Amino acid sequence: MRTLDPRLAADTHVMGFFGDTQVLLLRNAHYPWLVLVPDTDETEFHRLPLAAQSELMALASRLAVFIENWQPLDKVNIAAIGNVVSQMHLHVVGRRCDDPCWPGVVWGAEPFKAYEAEALDTLRSRLVAEVGEDYRPIAQLDLKKAT
Amino acid sequence: MRTLDPRLAADTHVMGFFGDTQVLLLRNAHYPWLVLVPDTDETEFHRLPLAAQSELMALASRLAVFIENWQPLDKVNIAAIGNVVSQMHLHVVGRRCDDPCWPGVVWGAEPFKAYEAEALDTLRSRLVAEVGEDYRPIAQLDLKKAT
Repeated sequence: MRTLDPRLAADTHVMGFFGDTQVLLLRNAHYPWLVLVPDTDETEFHRLPLAAQSELMALASRLAVFIENWQPLDKVNIAAIGNVVSQMHLHVVGRRCDDPCWPGVVWGAEPFKAYEAEALDTLRSRLVAEVGEDYRPIAQLDLKKAT
Repeated sequence: MRTLDPRLAADTHVMGFFGDTQVLLLRNAHYPWLVLVPDTDETEFHRLPLAAQSELMALASRLAVFIENWQPLDKVNIAAIGNVVSQMHLHVVGRRCDDPCWPGVVWGAEPFKAYEAEALDTLRSRLVAEVGEDYRPIAQLDLKKAT
């Protein structure tokens, strides 16, 4: 498994893995904002094999439904950007008409709001219960121990 | 074929169709910025059937390669946002490290720069030559005549 880019690691909580794809949660409780990191050296989404693209979008879609069930949402934004961090990653961001930067995009926007540790545990449990058996939860602390 | 949202129509040049998916070019020559509009009433990418998602991403990937061949690029951003215009559309945006808003995202950013009419004709010809036989070029004027 490839090492997580240090900026992605600093900005997120590790939620776990779906197969070889790592699922991160942005350290910003203003939006349910997940980041999927497939285990690849390719940096451009459009150069992934089509099967890998489809697999990643299918997982993004499952997680989009998950965040819709977690919080009332008006929109889900799904994006492969990567201008700052080149390691392949896909954003799945839940948006509400009353969130801090609606209707603008979240990238580059303020403000940030921390999650409580309990909220993260609850979220991991919900991922296990609602998203499926191929999910392996892992906490940042466990990841640090493991590496 | 569904009518194009008036804000999308105002902000773009119509390039043509790939099957039932309309291809638009943002009226901003600072970035090669295409928008794909599949013919659907669904507004959330993650609620499209997986086959339709895959088909749309495959087309986005072909067009990402096209814009890489059109201009030297450092990155391609692919995104389903739709916070302002609910009609389903997918952005394919070519980025360069020296473009006006790098490494920020293009959504909501200034400035704008118009295309010359000749550049649009050239681009349609290149789409025909390079992207494939399922492309049907159409000019905005022709579209207005046709409707």
